[in-house]
Amino acid sequence: MIQVAVLGYGTVGSGVVEVIERNKTEINKKSGEELNVKYILDLRDFPGDPYEDKVVHDVDVILNDSEVKIICETMGGLKPAYDFTKRALLAGKSVCTSNKELVAAHGPELIRIAHENQCNYLFEASVGGGIPIIRPLNYSLTAEKIDAITGILNGTTNYILSKMEREGADFDSVLKEAQEKGYAERNPEADVEGYDACRKIAILSSLMTGKNVNYEDIYTEGITKITATDFLYAKAMNKTVKLLAQSKEVDGKYYAMVSPFLIGKDHPLAMVNDVFNAVFVHGNMLGDSMYYGKGAGKLPTASAVVSDVVDCARHIGKTIMCFWDDERVTLTGIEEASRKFFVRVAADKEKEAIAAFESMAVVEADVPSEFAFITDVMTEKEFNEKAEKVGIISRIRVEA
Amino acid sequence: MIQVAVLGYGTVGSGVVEVIERNKTEINKKSGEELNVKYILDLRDFPGDPYEDKVVHDVDVILNDSEVKIICETMGGLKPAYDFTKRALLAGKSVCTSNKELVAAHGPELIRIAHENQCNYLFEASVGGGIPIIRPLNYSLTAEKIDAITGILNGTTNYILSKMEREGADFDSVLKEAQEKGYAERNPEADVEGYDACRKIAILSSLMTGKNVNYEDIYTEGITKITATDFLYAKAMNKTVKLLAQSKEVDGKYYAMVSPFLIGKDHPLAMVNDVFNAVFVHGNMLGDSMYYGKGAGKLPTASAVVSDVVDCARHIGKTIMCFWDDERVTLTGIEEASRKFFVRVAADKEKEAIAAFESMAVVEADVPSEFAFITDVMTEKEFNEKAEKVGIISRIRVEA
Repeated sequence: MIQVAVLGYGTVGSGVVEVIERNKTEINKKSGEELNVKYILDLRDFPGDPYEDKVVHDVDVILNDSEVKIICETMGGLKPAYDFTKRALLAGKSVCTSNKELVAAHGPELIRIAHENQCNYLFEASVGGGIPIIRPLNYSLTAEKIDAITGILNGTTNYILSKMEREGADFDSVLKEAQEKGYAERNPEADVEGYDACRKIAILSSLMTGKNVNYEDIYTEGITKITATDFLYAKAMNKTVKLLAQSKEVDGKYYAMVSPFLIGKDHPLAMVNDVFNAVFVHGNMLGDSMYYGKGAGKLPTASAVVSDVVDCARHIGKTIMCFWDDERVTLTGIEEASRKFFVRVAADKEKEAIAAFESMAVVEADVPSEFAFITDVMTEKEFNEKAEKVGIISRIRVEA
Repeated sequence: MIQVAVLGYGTVGSGVVEVIERNKTEINKKSGEELNVKYILDLRDFPGDPYEDKVVHDVDVILNDSEVKIICETMGGLKPAYDFTKRALLAGKSVCTSNKELVAAHGPELIRIAHENQCNYLFEASVGGGIPIIRPLNYSLTAEKIDAITGILNGTTNYILSKMEREGADFDSVLKEAQEKGYAERNPEADVEGYDACRKIAILSSLMTGKNVNYEDIYTEGITKITATDFLYAKAMNKTVKLLAQSKEVDGKYYAMVSPFLIGKDHPLAMVNDVFNAVFVHGNMLGDSMYYGKGAGKLPTASAVVSDVVDCARHIGKTIMCFWDDERVTLTGIEEASRKFFVRVAADKEKEAIAAFESMAVVEADVPSEFAFITDVMTEKEFNEKAEKVGIISRIRVEA
C-alpha cells in the first residue's frame, strides 16, 4: 500500500480524494499497488466529512511520516506551498500539483530537487486542467522538434468570449453574469488580464525549449477591451476572437505572448467554446496536433493530479523524464514579431488610414461611422508607428 | 549506444530512418542514449540510398545480433510480420510497430510474450498515425474509467467525405480523384468499407476495457452508399457526415461499430477535415477530451514509431504498463443499440412513413420527390422492422 497526503482540502483537493475513492479499482490496477489517502492538511476542520479523521493542521505530521510517499499539493499560491513542496521533495516524497503559480515560478528548481532526492515533481494539472498535455509533451512527442504551441488556456475568458460571440453582449455584462454563476472570481483580474494563461504558457514554453521561460518576460494582454462591435466585425469576416497563449521558435528566436486574436472559424481552436481549453502543438515531423478538454473544474483537474499520483506510484525511488533546466530563455521583444492586424478607425480617418497603411483588406460590417480593415503583415513596431499617426479606435491581432 | 533495426523500407520504414536522423539531437537526449539504425530489412536493394549499406535481406542477421535491442516493424500485414515480431520478442528485443492488422489480430499475445521476455511491444503508430493516443490512454488517463471512445480513424474516407461536403460531388468521382492523387489505394476496399477503421477501434476498445475486443466482432459499414444528396440534407440540418468508429460501455454492456454518422456542425469531430484524424474520449471524471492530428503520412506515422523507440530505449530490460488481456469481450449485438436515424423515402411514401414511425422531425431540403425525416430514438431492430415495412431509399445513423 502506498500512503498519500493531500495538502489543501478545497475544490481540487477534495476532488483528488473523491477521484481516488470512486475510481479505486482502475487506479490501484494502474498504480500496481493500492493507494490510500492517509492525511489531508487544512487549516479548517471538517466535522461530518467522511474523511474528517484524516484532517491534520500541522504539515510536519505529514513530512515526518516516512510511510507517506506521495503528496498532492492543491493549495495554490506560493506561500506556504513553495516551502512545503521543497521540504517534501528533500524528504524524498514525490509531489503532484495543480499549482500553476508555483510551477511557473519555481519549476526547474523543484524538479532538480526532486531528481536529487530520487523522487518526482509532477504538474499535469497545472496546465489545461484535465487535458493530458504535460505527459504528451514529455513522453509522446519525443521524436519531434516542437516549434510552436498555441493554447486556449483559460476557461473563464473563453466562457466570456464564447458568450459575447453567441449573444452579441458586451464584456462587462457577460463578466458580471459569469461572476454570479461562479465561472469568474469576484476579483477577475488574474483571468481577464491574461495572467493565468501567461503562467500556463510559460510552463509549456519551458517544456518546449527544455530551458526556463520566465513568465514575467511574456507580453500579456487581456480581453477587457474586446467589445460586442469587435464580434460584429469578426462575424462578417467568418472569424472569432479568442484569448491565445502562444510560444514560437522562428529562426532560433523565441517569441511568447498572451493576447486576444482573431482566428478563422475553420481553425480547430475556433470551435473550442465555453469552459473548454485546447492546446495546439506544431512539431517538425508531425505537423499540427491538438489536445482538447475541460480546462478547469473540480473532478477534471483532480483527475490530472491523480494521474500524476499513479505515475509517481509506478516510479517510487526512480525519476521520471522531464527536461526543464534553470537556464533562462531570452525572449525576443514583441515589437519584432510580425503579423496582420485588424484595425478600426473613425469613418473620417479613412484617408489617413489608407495613406499610412497603404495596402489593406477593407472589412465590411454593419457598423456606422467606422472604417475597418486588415493590414498586411508587419512588425508590431511598424504597426504601432502607423497606428499612432492615424489615431485608431482599436486593433486586434490576427492569427494566420 | 542503442542499436535499432527497421523491418520494411517502404513509406513508414524510410520515414523512421529519416526521423531518427533529422531529429537526432532531440531524440538522443530524450532516449538518454544515442540511437543508431544498424540494419534495414527489405527484399529489395536500394542502390544510391544513403543507408544502402545497412540493408539486409535475411531477418536472422537482425534476430541473431545481440546488439540490436529495438526493432521497428513497418512491414504491415500478418505475414511474415507476425513471425518476425514473435521471434524478436522471444529474443528479448522490443518491437515498435505501425502495423494495425497485426496489433488487432495478435496484440494481447505479443504483449504477453514481450513482458515474459523483459521487453516491450509498442504500437502508438497503429492508431491515428502521428496523433498521440495509445500513450495518453495508457499513461495519462490513468485516473479515469473510460466509457466511450469515438474516432475519425481513417484519413482516406475522411478526405472523401470532406470533399463531397465541400464540392457537392458524388462518392465515385471523389474516390477516383483521390486515387489519382494517391490519397486512396487502387483497391480502396480496406478504407472505404471501414475495415481499416475497424481494426483501429478494436485496438482502442481493447485498451479501454483492458480485455480483447476482436475486430471480427465489430459491426462495420463503409461510406460507399453516401451520396451528394445526403450532404444536401446534412447541410439543411447544419450537420455533416463522418465515418465514426465507436466503442461504448453502457450499463455493463459493450458496443462497438464503424459506420457513417450524421453529426452536428458544433461537435468537435465535425471540424476534423481531410486527412486529419481525431479521437474523442469520454471518462467518468474528466468528461470529454479529444486528440487531433495527422492520421497518416510518412513522417507523422514515423514520428509515432520513433516515440515508441524512445520509450523502449528508456526501458531496456523493463516492461512498460499496458493492460490488454487475452480474455475476449462479448460485444452486444448492434440490433440492441438505440439511436435516432435520418431516413429518406420517396415522396409518395410519406403516409406510410408517418404511419410506421409515428413521431419524427421532418427535414426540409431542396430535394424533389422525396420525404425525409429524423426518427425518435429506437433500437436498430425496431428501426429495421419499420424501414422494411415502408420501403426506404436510405438511412444514416445520427450521433447524439
